[in-house]
Amino acid sequence: MTIKIALLGFGTVAKGIPYLLKENQHKLLSLEGEDIVIDKVLVRDNESRQRFINQGFTYNFVTEINTILQDSQIDIVVELMGGIEPAKTYLSQALGFGKHIVTANKDLIALHGKELMDLADARGLALFYEGAVAGGIPILRTLSHSFASDKMTRLLGILNGTSNFMLTKMFEEGWSYEQALKKAQELGYAESDPTNDVEGIDTAYKATILSQFGFGMPIDFDDVNYKGISSIRSEDVEVAQEMGFAIKLVADLRETPTGISVDVSPTLISQKHPLAAVNHVMNAVFIESIGIGQSLFYGPGAGQNPTATSVLADIIDISRSIRSQIKIKPMNTYHCPCRLSMQSDIFNEYYLAISLRNAEDSDTLGRYFEQENIGLKNVIEKALGDKQQEIYVLTDEVSQEKITQFIEEFPESGVIQLINVFKVIGG
Amino acid sequence: MTIKIALLGFGTVAKGIPYLLKENQHKLLSLEGEDIVIDKVLVRDNESRQRFINQGFTYNFVTEINTILQDSQIDIVVELMGGIEPAKTYLSQALGFGKHIVTANKDLIALHGKELMDLADARGLALFYEGAVAGGIPILRTLSHSFASDKMTRLLGILNGTSNFMLTKMFEEGWSYEQALKKAQELGYAESDPTNDVEGIDTAYKATILSQFGFGMPIDFDDVNYKGISSIRSEDVEVAQEMGFAIKLVADLRETPTGISVDVSPTLISQKHPLAAVNHVMNAVFIESIGIGQSLFYGPGAGQNPTATSVLADIIDISRSIRSQIKIKPMNTYHCPCRLSMQSDIFNEYYLAISLRNAEDSDTLGRYFEQENIGLKNVIEKALGDKQQEIYVLTDEVSQEKITQFIEEFPESGVIQLINVFKVIGG
Repeated sequence: MTIKIALLGFGTVAKGIPYLLKENQHKLLSLEGEDIVIDKVLVRDNESRQRFINQGFTYNFVTEINTILQDSQIDIVVELMGGIEPAKTYLSQALGFGKHIVTANKDLIALHGKELMDLADARGLALFYEGAVAGGIPILRTLSHSFASDKMTRLLGILNGTSNFMLTKMFEEGWSYEQALKKAQELGYAESDPTNDVEGIDTAYKATILSQFGFGMPIDFDDVNYKGISSIRSEDVEVAQEMGFAIKLVADLRETPTGISVDVSPTLISQKHPLAAVNHVMNAVFIESIGIGQSLFYGPGAGQNPTATSVLADIIDISRSIRSQIKIKPMNTYHCPCRLSMQSDIFNEYYLAISLRNAEDSDTLGRYFEQENIGLKNVIEKALGDKQQEIYVLTDEVSQEKITQFIEEFPESGVIQLINVFKVIGG
Repeated sequence: MTIKIALLGFGTVAKGIPYLLKENQHKLLSLEGEDIVIDKVLVRDNESRQRFINQGFTYNFVTEINTILQDSQIDIVVELMGGIEPAKTYLSQALGFGKHIVTANKDLIALHGKELMDLADARGLALFYEGAVAGGIPILRTLSHSFASDKMTRLLGILNGTSNFMLTKMFEEGWSYEQALKKAQELGYAESDPTNDVEGIDTAYKATILSQFGFGMPIDFDDVNYKGISSIRSEDVEVAQEMGFAIKLVADLRETPTGISVDVSPTLISQKHPLAAVNHVMNAVFIESIGIGQSLFYGPGAGQNPTATSVLADIIDISRSIRSQIKIKPMNTYHCPCRLSMQSDIFNEYYLAISLRNAEDSDTLGRYFEQENIGLKNVIEKALGDKQQEIYVLTDEVSQEKITQFIEEFPESGVIQLINVFKVIGG
């Protein structure tokens, strides 16, 4: 039984699918017995259609979604357009027409996944999206299958290749944020508007999805605290390095006595921690759990073939169920009521960069930490010339409530300024 | 519908299962709707039975396998005795009685897996063994599900915790092989007869199993070239370190134009390679494939809770199929005819340690490499006193055929001796 699929969109990832189907044909036939065939491809307009045909592609390019929806031969609709609309409308319609869905659209799944999943579940259809988180790392299926027997306590992820590339360059080459961004844009890793990547939004989408698989709790995107990498300066990277840390943009999901906490922030991570060695555009997910203990899943976070591989794994999974006439199970079946951790319940060590006018201020600062009852593990002072200096401290563990209050009440003045506060892991 | 299981054996891993069932009860109930219950536990004799009861365990301990086989209420038999017999006989009988099987017994699966799988397939029963390879890393299920869409070209694994612990100590602390082995035995990582761990046999069993999942080729254990770590000396570790390498016991599975090659050997691995940072008793599998590119799966290779987690994941997988009345699929469905690579077709760089009596021999040696047409990338000479010296070389890529011939025909004499030849990766 040949499985017929339709692609919505024919961009980079979509073009990876025919490559894999061809190069892997022998294995797929051995596994599945029969072919998976790209029956139709939706493109924007006749102009795009003509362009692809001129490029030598011989697919059945269509410009109307209805041509696909009303073709009862098509089993699976594979959405690779990105963005919220019209993807959301098309997928809702496709589910209405009884089509299974595969997508790699993290924005859509993070913001409107529940609505679409409810539609799919009600009709016994698949809505699979392995490619939406950490492109080439099969983390969602691993969490829902292999970790069914385990109980996760914390998940740390490097989930955005663009910002990780930039931080790697800042760490290894001493580049500034601006230099790193320029290079990322030249190489096509960052868009001309890089906001989603560098401000942590993309990572926060992925963290939202991971919270469902890891803790059974579908946290709202609005409940994710996120902060990007644009405030990280060369000075911070250099001091972190001296102290034995790399700086990474880390998604940190954990269970505390009162609930779960999901946050995305620039983080000093000990160079002895496996995540510190995850460089360039690579992604990784580090898991702490009561059964396995510590495990790490590492691979490319994006790119044509890695993402297409995840998308095709979803397609194969659905094909197997169709062929064996097995009822499709939702990708994630772990559901608990979502409880958010209290701020007084989340503990971290912190790195603070503070600028001072002169040495006496350093004593004032010391007394302030003492008065606030925040212990310090490490203090480095650097003269920046013209009586200006910066002081960098690593704190003992303090609650999120406490650090927030500390930052709000910090006695900023012309002479003392709090420049950066970053979380620390594995100090 | 409660799923009833019977444990064969009540050692370390078996005792981890009740712990996970209890600690994870809330999640399991949310996922599965109903309980998994340990109905009977097979122990050796009445003495063991009494000992466990005295220790406070309240399971239904039995001493006759028939009590389990003939209990039609038992759905799944979980074998955790280890060794070939009586495990093999018990599992064949259990399949005959229509029981699904879960085991973590790598020796049994590597040597007699095919026979047992044929029995299981013929009766539509499960024979799952995620815990048999890299205990806490869910690598088999990942290969058969998520990599269905990908085509692997090479798989490198650090799969034996004991030898990796020893090599880490030799690398980090400068210990000798003997010191490292003594410590591993004190800590309970190595048995009093450590042969299987240190001579690469345990790793070769796991490589045999991985070849089926990675390349669809069920290589015979006898076709795996394996060599252990007992010939590695402190000098080798030190020179490797100077040259920028760690030494690891690496299972190397790859596809070449003529077939697959599976070998287990001490390997110099570049410190820039992710596997070089896999230390102590941790395991890792590094995969190169046409779709994902490079990926790494890292976690504990053994131990009570990690292995019990994999065993329980298998049990949950079977429970889901029983409850949904879905036909069980074999754990691996990828099958090609097994073709072994020709020796002339497998290329590696090599590290050679050679002892010499005096400086002139060094020229003789140089001429010999030239005459054999083996290029050298790096040469280090060290005086060991008393006119004795050692010379260490890194070769260019040569075929396995060529290096074998080189070693056989090496002009050993009282003055020149070839001490060690190790493979090199990522030089």
